[in-house]
Amino acid sequence: MTAKGSTSPDLLLMLDRSRPRSLRVQIEAELRRAIRAGRLQPGSALPSTRALAVDLGVTRGVVVDAYDQLTAEGYLLSRPGSGTVVSPATARPASSPPTVPADAGVDVDFYAGESDLDGFPRSAWARATRTALQTMPTSELAYGHVQGIPSLRHELADYLGRVRGVDAAPEHILVGHGFNHVFGLVSRVLRDSGRTIFAVEDPGYDRARAGLESLGIAYRGVDVDDNGLVVDQLRATGARVVVVTPAHQHPTGVVLTPERRHELVDWAQSVDGYVIEDDYDAEYRYDRRPVGAVQGLAPDRVIHAGTTSKALAPGVRLGWLVLPPALVDRVADHRRTTDGSTSGILQATFASFLGNGDLDRHLRRMRRVYRQRRDGLVAALARWLPELTPSGAAAGLHVLVRLPPQADESEVVDRTLAAGVRVYPLAQYRPPHGRPLPPALVLGYGSVTPQQSDHGVRVLATTLEEALRTRSGRR
Amino acid sequence: MTAKGSTSPDLLLMLDRSRPRSLRVQIEAELRRAIRAGRLQPGSALPSTRALAVDLGVTRGVVVDAYDQLTAEGYLLSRPGSGTVVSPATARPASSPPTVPADAGVDVDFYAGESDLDGFPRSAWARATRTALQTMPTSELAYGHVQGIPSLRHELADYLGRVRGVDAAPEHILVGHGFNHVFGLVSRVLRDSGRTIFAVEDPGYDRARAGLESLGIAYRGVDVDDNGLVVDQLRATGARVVVVTPAHQHPTGVVLTPERRHELVDWAQSVDGYVIEDDYDAEYRYDRRPVGAVQGLAPDRVIHAGTTSKALAPGVRLGWLVLPPALVDRVADHRRTTDGSTSGILQATFASFLGNGDLDRHLRRMRRVYRQRRDGLVAALARWLPELTPSGAAAGLHVLVRLPPQADESEVVDRTLAAGVRVYPLAQYRPPHGRPLPPALVLGYGSVTPQQSDHGVRVLATTLEEALRTRSGRR
Repeated sequence: MTAKGSTSPDLLLMLDRSRPRSLRVQIEAELRRAIRAGRLQPGSALPSTRALAVDLGVTRGVVVDAYDQLTAEGYLLSRPGSGTVVSPATARPASSPPTVPADAGVDVDFYAGESDLDGFPRSAWARATRTALQTMPTSELAYGHVQGIPSLRHELADYLGRVRGVDAAPEHILVGHGFNHVFGLVSRVLRDSGRTIFAVEDPGYDRARAGLESLGIAYRGVDVDDNGLVVDQLRATGARVVVVTPAHQHPTGVVLTPERRHELVDWAQSVDGYVIEDDYDAEYRYDRRPVGAVQGLAPDRVIHAGTTSKALAPGVRLGWLVLPPALVDRVADHRRTTDGSTSGILQATFASFLGNGDLDRHLRRMRRVYRQRRDGLVAALARWLPELTPSGAAAGLHVLVRLPPQADESEVVDRTLAAGVRVYPLAQYRPPHGRPLPPALVLGYGSVTPQQSDHGVRVLATTLEEALRTRSGRR
Repeated sequence: MTAKGSTSPDLLLMLDRSRPRSLRVQIEAELRRAIRAGRLQPGSALPSTRALAVDLGVTRGVVVDAYDQLTAEGYLLSRPGSGTVVSPATARPASSPPTVPADAGVDVDFYAGESDLDGFPRSAWARATRTALQTMPTSELAYGHVQGIPSLRHELADYLGRVRGVDAAPEHILVGHGFNHVFGLVSRVLRDSGRTIFAVEDPGYDRARAGLESLGIAYRGVDVDDNGLVVDQLRATGARVVVVTPAHQHPTGVVLTPERRHELVDWAQSVDGYVIEDDYDAEYRYDRRPVGAVQGLAPDRVIHAGTTSKALAPGVRLGWLVLPPALVDRVADHRRTTDGSTSGILQATFASFLGNGDLDRHLRRMRRVYRQRRDGLVAALARWLPELTPSGAAAGLHVLVRLPPQADESEVVDRTLAAGVRVYPLAQYRPPHGRPLPPALVLGYGSVTPQQSDHGVRVLATTLEEALRTRSGRR
């Protein structure tokens, strides 16, 4: 490296002649840096172009160009007769410290929201991207596909009809960036249509509630029993929109019964309301084929929402709505003025991935992995905590474990975390003002191997015992 | 194909034994279809499982399974003693007709929002995707990267500092889905902080105004003169946020002068306000290096917003904010409850694309293409409409052409469209209640070859002459 420093008392500029960037660009960058760092104060005079050029061993034209550029950008002021000075308004704000991840020291994390990211089919996705880029029409790289590119909507309609019993025409589908995004879009449109009160499951998905709060939408919790959402209670809420997880209730794992499905649809008809069906992990059922979507029963009253987050990975960031025909234009119009559309490249990739059977192959493989992990967790519970039985269908990526009634959820969570194992309290899934529920934990096994489950549950058994002992001692 | 139809009067099910899908799945799909299409009415009885099995030549177990599945999904009801019937609530809504694209018959489209999509570097993007998928950490496939994955934020900070003079630390960057998305995020946060009135350029970017309207934010138009936004007028609006395009005003093409840059920053300081800098096509300047971003002058008062839509293609759907430190957490918190994050795969791909110099190479190539197209359009204007001179810096992807004062913009647009050439009126870029401006057209050349420009402008010259003749005849 050959560096040369200027000798002006105000200004030390380091130029690196071995680097490909032009000397002019280097001079500019160094001057900006000096101004920002406060080494060149507002109002202070710069050397003349001639002096700096001699100093740096460059032609004067290079320095003149650099000064001109920085003057155009507002860093410098050129005053006739008195040379070039640093502009005012270049004071620096203090920068915030970098954030540190909080997960140091956790051996096992039973987070329920995660699929097995190591299982993501990286090569198949790269191949699908190449195929997509080789074949997608140029128009799909443009603006304007508010509902999504046609090829993906066709593939999705076919897939959802075949696998989930959804009655999906491509023109009723809207593709967005995951469940939370598309849920926000349709919720906003329903709110603006005068449906200002929503109902949610209690317990239920916390991020859906956060999305409603962000939109300023009021919601009421509705109990979930062994048949799923209690529709009788829903009727009393005054809500005209309800968010449900019929295939595998989040987090209890209950499957909504046929009777309740019909009650739900009848309720929607009777209040001129809508059901938002969050089909979040319907791909994973281990004992039988998954029960089909409620949407198929009443496509004019049910908004079906799906995502790649569990089937593939959250990092794909695709989600979709199958909308009642009456809502399509309103949701599309709202979408047009917010984020506009979803990456055409990403959509074309997923269309190729669906169309060539990659998703089916991936799901077959992952079902084996997750069944094994579920079995591992259930076996660990039977071994270390035989008095607690996990509830819910043999499906999804998590189980619910009810604790002894005298246990305190957050105490157990804290003690277990201190021992290096992260478990999640049922409280996290509950809207405010719900009826008291027995204490329980939600244990996700999507990214937890059987070996890790065994270790994690053993730790949990110890900390739970300690917590119960301390508690009874206190009484 | 071997098909077999059942002979029951109510029910004709077609099974295809040559297809890989199981007979049970086929029976279910056929039954769903028959119920949805109304061929099986609510309440009507299904054949017994035994009869249907004989009819279709399958084992009875297959039919029992299919009935069970459809009962669980709510399509069928099983009544003890009276067999299986179709459930109520299965009526079909009318489906809306498919939309037809409106662009048939347009030979040349001078749309200003588009880059040359044929120039999109498909192979390089596919390679960058493969590299990204081979090297990205598993954690980048998870939830939680609200501001964007670290590798992309580092690459962006480097790129924006180097090419745009932006003072960008990775921890102040937020990556989203294009300009409109990130603009909406920060606008919402500024509104909620009590900055309820915004100012926009007049003329200015129409989709920014639409975004504000969608958020219910009031805005005032501020004139643009030959030095850019008139800051004196801005002071009188009461606004505390302004949206500007300093590098190449959209659509006049004016570059904001150094004096105005300082006035703008001073204004923001004095009202405790913010400048949203839309750096939409700053990569394209043909006569000199582009003037750097205003953000570098006052990183605590300027929100810098950029996107891949012009540099690459709208179908990539990436955009970013460089935020004042005081706003980072609030914007990130809001983002967490709306769409959550942007595809990690897409981000890792762009990080690789930036890091290995692909973007620089692509921009060098496209600058040559666009300069040629701009020259082609300017030459066509000189040839067919020599009395009109395009205005604005030699930059970007469009020019502004002022019409003779007696011309009517929308009449010219309509006549020209009828002749197969789409041009865009200045009116489209104007907020309501602005002062009268002389008629003008905005002509984009990003996807228009010199040959197409010549044809398009020749048509425009004819239709403009007709319009003017009719108009003077009317007087």
